[in-house]
Amino acid sequence: MGILQKTCTPESLFSGERFSVTYRIFGTEREARAKAENICIEQTVEFPAEEVPAGVIRDHVFGRIESFEPGGADSFRAKISYANEIAAGELTQLLNVIFGNSSIKPGIRVEHLDLSESLLARFRGPRFGREGIRNLLNVPKRPLLCTAIKPMGLSSRELADLAYTFAAGGMDMIKDDHGLTDQACAPFEERVRLCSEAVVRACKETGRAALYIANITGPSRDAQKRARIAKEAGAGGIMIAPGIAGFDLMRELADDDSLGLPILTHPALQGSFVTCQGGMSHGVIFGQLARLAGADATIFPNFGGRFSFSREECAEIVRATREPMGRLKPIFPAPGGGMSLARVPEMLGTYGRDLIFLIGGGLFQHGPDLLENCQYFRSMVERIQT
Amino acid sequence: MGILQKTCTPESLFSGERFSVTYRIFGTEREARAKAENICIEQTVEFPAEEVPAGVIRDHVFGRIESFEPGGADSFRAKISYANEIAAGELTQLLNVIFGNSSIKPGIRVEHLDLSESLLARFRGPRFGREGIRNLLNVPKRPLLCTAIKPMGLSSRELADLAYTFAAGGMDMIKDDHGLTDQACAPFEERVRLCSEAVVRACKETGRAALYIANITGPSRDAQKRARIAKEAGAGGIMIAPGIAGFDLMRELADDDSLGLPILTHPALQGSFVTCQGGMSHGVIFGQLARLAGADATIFPNFGGRFSFSREECAEIVRATREPMGRLKPIFPAPGGGMSLARVPEMLGTYGRDLIFLIGGGLFQHGPDLLENCQYFRSMVERIQT
Repeated sequence: MGILQKTCTPESLFSGERFSVTYRIFGTEREARAKAENICIEQTVEFPAEEVPAGVIRDHVFGRIESFEPGGADSFRAKISYANEIAAGELTQLLNVIFGNSSIKPGIRVEHLDLSESLLARFRGPRFGREGIRNLLNVPKRPLLCTAIKPMGLSSRELADLAYTFAAGGMDMIKDDHGLTDQACAPFEERVRLCSEAVVRACKETGRAALYIANITGPSRDAQKRARIAKEAGAGGIMIAPGIAGFDLMRELADDDSLGLPILTHPALQGSFVTCQGGMSHGVIFGQLARLAGADATIFPNFGGRFSFSREECAEIVRATREPMGRLKPIFPAPGGGMSLARVPEMLGTYGRDLIFLIGGGLFQHGPDLLENCQYFRSMVERIQT
Repeated sequence: MGILQKTCTPESLFSGERFSVTYRIFGTEREARAKAENICIEQTVEFPAEEVPAGVIRDHVFGRIESFEPGGADSFRAKISYANEIAAGELTQLLNVIFGNSSIKPGIRVEHLDLSESLLARFRGPRFGREGIRNLLNVPKRPLLCTAIKPMGLSSRELADLAYTFAAGGMDMIKDDHGLTDQACAPFEERVRLCSEAVVRACKETGRAALYIANITGPSRDAQKRARIAKEAGAGGIMIAPGIAGFDLMRELADDDSLGLPILTHPALQGSFVTCQGGMSHGVIFGQLARLAGADATIFPNFGGRFSFSREECAEIVRATREPMGRLKPIFPAPGGGMSLARVPEMLGTYGRDLIFLIGGGLFQHGPDLLENCQYFRSMVERIQT
C-alpha cells in the first residue's frame, strides 16, 4: 500500500466527456507504446502511476490510449484522450495538457486535436471568420489581397503614405509589418492613427472597403491598451503573434465584445514547433490552435518562398482552417513570405479561392510605380475570378 | 532607383548601441553565410535589401554580422548585432528580433545573447535572485529543497495536507504541480488559501521558514488575479510557465512592487525550442531569458531523469543563471523530473550547492512514511553541507 490510499474527490466532478490528442511517436513499436503510456501520466498526474490509488484519479484523470497504430517511417500514432475537466475550461491549461511536459521529450509530435463538442463550447473562437471578413470587405468570392507596411525605420508618416497607396491600389488589407511595435521612428499610437486615417481616406476616394490591421503584439498590459487605441483610431483589425504574446491574449481580445475587431495571427517565434521531428503539426499550431484562440486569419509561410514549408504542409493548414470544430467558424489561410506576383496562379491551384494573398516586398519589385503594382496585382486576382 | 528613395527618420533616434545574438547555423560555409546575411534582414526590415535606400535604415536597422566562424559538426557560428532601438525596450519585441521569423527556418539555433548594458538597464530582472531567496528562507549556504503537491485529482484539503507534511518534514519550497490550475477538484482560490495556511502552520511549529508556491499560469487576466489572490492568501511565491502564458506576463509580475513575490519558471511547452537542431539553446531559454523575464529560479529536467537533457546541457543552464548580465541577479537552477534521493550526491557534483533540488514523486517512493521521507531528504542535504 502506497502513501496515498484514497482521495475524497467525488466522481461526480467528472462528466465522462473527453477530448483526444493524436501524437505521432517516433521509435520502435515497443518504445512508442511505452512513450504513449508515459504521455498518459506525464500530461496529467505527473506522478508515479503505481503510487496512485484505485478510484477517481485512475479512472478519470489519467490519460487513456484510445488507439495505437503504425504511423509510417519509424513512427506510430497514438490517440490519447483526457477528461474535459482537467483542462479547467482554460486555453492555457488545455495547451498544457496537450503538450506541456511532453514537449520536452524528443520524438513526440502533436498531430491533430479532436476536441469534444462540450469542450469546444467553452470557446467562442473567431468572431468573424472567413464569412465575416468577406462581409466587412464586401468581397463575396475572390481571394483577398493583403500587404504589409515596411520596412522598419520609416517614419509613421511614410508608413501611412504607403498604407494610403496600398489601399488606393486595391489591397483589401494593409497590415503593420510584425516587427513594428512601438519604436521611436514610428511610435504605436502615432503610426496607427496616421495609417488608419490614410486607409479610411483612400477608401472614401475609391469607394471600396479596406482594413488597416495594427500589430498590437507587445508587453502584456500594453497589448490590451494598443488594441483599444487601434479601435479608437479607426483601425480595421489587429494582428498578434501568439508565439510571443501568448495564445490566451489573442483569445481574450477575440472574446472582447467592446473591441470587436478581426484578428490576424502571425507565426513569429512559433517556428520551432514545426521545424523539428517533435513539436506540433502545421495544422495544429497554425490551424486548430489559431482558430481555437480566436484568429480570423492565419499567416504562415507559403511553400516555395524563402521559408521551408512544403505544399503538403500548407495544404494541412488549409484543411485545419475549415475542418469541423463545433461552432467555431472557418478562418482564412494567409500564406506569405517571399511571394511574388508570378506565383498567384500556382497558389490558387493549391489553396482555392478562400485565401488571403499576403505579399510584401514583392509589391516593390514588380515595376517602378507602387500604385500601379498594386493595381496590377488586384486586376490579376479579379481576372482569375471571372 | 527603387520605389523607396529615402526616409525622413532622423539618425538621432539611434544611439549606436547594439546587442548581439550568436546563432549556430547548420550547412556548408556558403549556405551558412547566406543564412547569416539573411538573418540580418529577416529579423529586422523583412524587406528586399536591394530596395532599401542608403541611409539610416541600412546604417542602423539592418542586423550586422559581427563575426562568423566554424561552429563544429557541419555548422557555423554567426554573431549578429542589432540596434537597441529596434527592440523598443520591450521584452516581446526583443524576443521577436532575436528569433521571430528565423524560428521558422530550419537549421538556425539561438546559442547565446549578449545584451548591452544599456539594453539590460531597461529590465529589472529577478526581484530576489539566489541571495534574496536564501534570505527569505534563512538558508545561507546549503542547497534548497523543493517538492510539488500532486497528483491532480486530489481535493484542496488533501493537497494542503500534503503541503503541511512537506513543510513539517523540512522542505524549503512546496509548489503546486504545474498542472494544477483551477480544476473543480481543487479550485485555485480554495487550494491556495488552504495550502498557504498549511505551510504557515507547519512553519510555526517547526520554527523554520518554508514557501508555498502557487501556480498562477492561466488565462491572461486570470493569471494576474491569481497572483494577487496568492499574495493575499499568504503564499510565499508564484510559479509561471512562460511557454504557455508568455514571458512578458512573468516580467510584469516580477516588476510589480505591490506583489513582491519570488517567481519560479516552469518549462512546460518550451521543449520544442531545445529538442531540435534549430530552436534555442538550453542556456538561452531556461537561463538568460528566464532571468531577463524576472524568474528567481528556473525549473528544468535534470540529466539522467525521465527527460533527455544531457549533463552538459544542464551545466549550460547553470552557467546562464549566473553569468554577468548587467545588474540582473543570478537565479537558482531547479533541476527536477524523475529525481530520486539516490541522485543527490551526483547532482551536487554537477551543480554545486547553489541549486534547488526539485523532487516530486520520488518522495513518495523512498519509504512508507512521507514525513520521514522528507526528513531523510533534508538530513541528507544538511549532512552534505557540513
